[in-house]
Amino acid sequence: MDNLGIVFLSELVGTALLVLLGCGVVANVALAKNKGVGGGFLMVTIGWGLAVFSGVIVAYNSGAHLNPAVTLGLVASGATEFGSGVPVNAVSVLAYIGAQMLGALLGAVFVWLAYKQHFDQEPNAANKLGVFSTGPAIRSYGWNLVTEIIGTFVLVFVVIAFGGGRQGESGGLAALGALPVALLVIVIGTSLGGPTGYAINPARDLGPRIAHFLLPIKGKGSSDWAYSWVPVAGPIIGGLLAGWASAVLLPILT
Amino acid sequence: MDNLGIVFLSELVGTALLVLLGCGVVANVALAKNKGVGGGFLMVTIGWGLAVFSGVIVAYNSGAHLNPAVTLGLVASGATEFGSGVPVNAVSVLAYIGAQMLGALLGAVFVWLAYKQHFDQEPNAANKLGVFSTGPAIRSYGWNLVTEIIGTFVLVFVVIAFGGGRQGESGGLAALGALPVALLVIVIGTSLGGPTGYAINPARDLGPRIAHFLLPIKGKGSSDWAYSWVPVAGPIIGGLLAGWASAVLLPILT
Amino acid sequence: MDNLGIVFLSELVGTALLVLLGCGVVANVALAKNKGVGGGFLMVTIGWGLAVFSGVIVAYNSGAHLNPAVTLGLVASGATEFGSGVPVNAVSVLAYIGAQMLGALLGAVFVWLAYKQHFDQEPNAANKLGVFSTGPAIRSYGWNLVTEIIGTFVLVFVVIAFGGGRQGESGGLAALGALPVALLVIVIGTSLGGPTGYAINPARDLGPRIAHFLLPIKGKGSSDWAYSWVPVAGPIIGGLLAGWASAVLLPILT
Amino acid sequence: MDNLGIVFLSELVGTALLVLLGCGVVANVALAKNKGVGGGFLMVTIGWGLAVFSGVIVAYNSGAHLNPAVTLGLVASGATEFGSGVPVNAVSVLAYIGAQMLGALLGAVFVWLAYKQHFDQEPNAANKLGVFSTGPAIRSYGWNLVTEIIGTFVLVFVVIAFGGGRQGESGGLAALGALPVALLVIVIGTSLGGPTGYAINPARDLGPRIAHFLLPIKGKGSSDWAYSWVPVAGPIIGGLLAGWASAVLLPILT
Repeated sequence: MDNLGIVFLSELVGTALLVLLGCGVVANVALAKNKGVGGGFLMVTIGWGLAVFSGVIVAYNSGAHLNPAVTLGLVASGATEFGSGVPVNAVSVLAYIGAQMLGALLGAVFVWLAYKQHFDQEPNAANKLGVFSTGPAIRSYGWNLVTEIIGTFVLVFVVIAFGGGRQGESGGLAALGALPVALLVIVIGTSLGGPTGYAINPARDLGPRIAHFLLPIKGKGSSDWAYSWVPVAGPIIGGLLAGWASAVLLPILT
Repeated sequence: MDNLGIVFLSELVGTALLVLLGCGVVANVALAKNKGVGGGFLMVTIGWGLAVFSGVIVAYNSGAHLNPAVTLGLVASGATEFGSGVPVNAVSVLAYIGAQMLGALLGAVFVWLAYKQHFDQEPNAANKLGVFSTGPAIRSYGWNLVTEIIGTFVLVFVVIAFGGGRQGESGGLAALGALPVALLVIVIGTSLGGPTGYAINPARDLGPRIAHFLLPIKGKGSSDWAYSWVPVAGPIIGGLLAGWASAVLLPILT
Repeated sequence: MDNLGIVFLSELVGTALLVLLGCGVVANVALAKNKGVGGGFLMVTIGWGLAVFSGVIVAYNSGAHLNPAVTLGLVASGATEFGSGVPVNAVSVLAYIGAQMLGALLGAVFVWLAYKQHFDQEPNAANKLGVFSTGPAIRSYGWNLVTEIIGTFVLVFVVIAFGGGRQGESGGLAALGALPVALLVIVIGTSLGGPTGYAINPARDLGPRIAHFLLPIKGKGSSDWAYSWVPVAGPIIGGLLAGWASAVLLPILT
Repeated sequence: MDNLGIVFLSELVGTALLVLLGCGVVANVALAKNKGVGGGFLMVTIGWGLAVFSGVIVAYNSGAHLNPAVTLGLVASGATEFGSGVPVNAVSVLAYIGAQMLGALLGAVFVWLAYKQHFDQEPNAANKLGVFSTGPAIRSYGWNLVTEIIGTFVLVFVVIAFGGGRQGESGGLAALGALPVALLVIVIGTSLGGPTGYAINPARDLGPRIAHFLLPIKGKGSSDWAYSWVPVAGPIIGGLLAGWASAVLLPILT
């Protein structure tokens, strides 16, 4: 298989695993009769952090972006090459993002299968959507956007600051390492996740939202498309800003 | 001692330690008057994850399978050699699985001894069984099986994807490393453990269930043999699928 | 840029990230309607520990002091050089501390932006100040000072004991490593954070307190200047004592 | 300073830090008006685990035993040399254990100082003793002893199994490494700490109990000397058994 095919498969499998384990912890805490009901926000943040850990492990070969905000941040930082020797261009960017979207959608389907009976017995439709996609604690698109921008900026800036991105190389999550990325995602959750549930990744939010829309989930309600652009636009803006900031700051700091 | 004897002893000690510490955290949370009562699901998942960590440390010499689903997954992946230079064949597979079963049974006996008074004073028979073996939150053998298959697939697939299994070598948990395995087991618990309590290991579930059946536990109830095949069959199927998926995907991804 | 400029930028960015993520976790737990409300003290200590982890990663180039108590402790230990080949003298000490103060202030501004609506809707003014700065559980300046001295002594002593400080080199948090520092900060929180909320860092407390004073936070109350000297003086005393203790003990122990 | 003096100082400082941070987390959770009140058993186990982490870091030079059960377990395993080139004999064993006892006592004094006001305002005398020393959930000296033996066996066996003890070398906690030891202590707490509060270290229990007896703690009750032999004898028996088991098993397994 050529390099672009490897990248596509790697990002697809990695993002599917990330979403399966990430959305899974929300299902465990939020859906009726689960053993993890009432597990608390700390358990959710640890689950998401280790979901990213697992995704990075299986997607090392593509640099483990697993997130369009990371891919676009690397483009903005002036990187010339992604993982596996793939050059940065429109085709490779589309391969990364397409695989991430498809992987996230697939991962969400497996969450639904693993928790099928609990979806069936959960009375609250909002809890069902909450397993798939984020929603704001206080709805205000402008401020929700600000929160998502800040959270994603932290993720992408630290990844590029410590990973190989500064030398114009691959610089995905794999460049920072699976454990440091996990700890970083945990702290973004504990510390910036309160207002919006920290999507910080357009694929992680939009892919499962499409799955929620398509799947025959018993008693499901709206997929809240009115909010859906915030966890896409916020992370993209945050990722781009982090890439540009890296291009300015990192030649000085490193 | 010959290599197969070392493997047997190593897997026996490692699995005994895994079950002592894993079932121990459930005892602490579930049995009357313990200091950990009400410790929550996150504490249970951390306890189980670090139980596997401890088991891997002492069983490095056999590759630390500690789980028939791992052993069988490696067989399905086409591995030709287990740890300690032992070839993959019917005898070595039986040595691994036999040691795991016996170790799990022994570990459960020590949990009973460590928590003897709390078993005696616990009024609820279901809590006593829950220390030894998993049970479903919503009983439905088909869907419970699906959940166990997905959880075990994640465990075995990531272990083989990142461990040495792809080169046809030992590739047990030791090949991934004690800490990464611990984090992986924690996240499988937080994220896929809600519906069935994540056995994801036939020895971990069946060994202690036999101990529950045999031990003179005060006021014990049924050992729930009707459910007992699910946490055996599910992990075996999940492990085999992960092995086959590895055989297809890993030559591409690595 | 010359070395002192790099140090200034590095400490500024690192401390800003530390305060954004550290004060952020308090906002998530303490301000109305957040998803992390009721997350508990353990979540706060993990959030602060990983906030320091993140700050150390981006500020490796200056040795990652991120804390005037660390800078002054290194001076007291007899170090002759900070990170980036910068000699220890009055100018470099001021560059470090000035950058830490400014970074902490900036980080606090971003916390306010990320949690803007939750500050607006939180009825309790004390909770708002608590996001920015520490306060005592039982007010008694003398004993509060003792607690802060002990906590900071532990931080700076362990950093210098295990980092490169003993050889008269840089010896900031970076010398101990981002993960060990994070674990150390978590345990100082869990174990010595009960009485005063463990400032253990003058910049972390005073910078955000100034931000609280200056920002147009809706319904804010007093900035509690009467207490403000305790989390400045305590950490400085603790850091100096740790530096002197290191100068005596470490030539023996290492 | 000669090697035995270094060992004494190293073990004293390391054990003092271990007890300050370990007993500190109990104070935070148990004493009135602390910010960590209600933090839960998981926070206690994490605090104790990271307390050991910190103690190991500063006591690397003596091998970081920090626990008479580790020292005696190494003797039973047939080790011929402790850390710093000190031979195993009656004098060196007494130096290790004496330093551990004195360090534990000192650490407990600093806990009292850090939490002075909270000791003063705590109405329950049993909570005050609980900060210093362990006590059984269900009092029964025989079974309490069994639990302590099992818990300490796990600690010392894993330390010797993975550390350097098998080659007859130092083999303290430092040989396993600070992070693995911390994770091991966390899981012993979550999984075997329910019935007795897991002393698993005679110095950690007896040293602070003596401090409780001697210090002028306001409103303190009995130091419960009737129970005090259990958390001394149990860990010593468990450590010796682990040392003997290592001497038999490890030549086979490694």
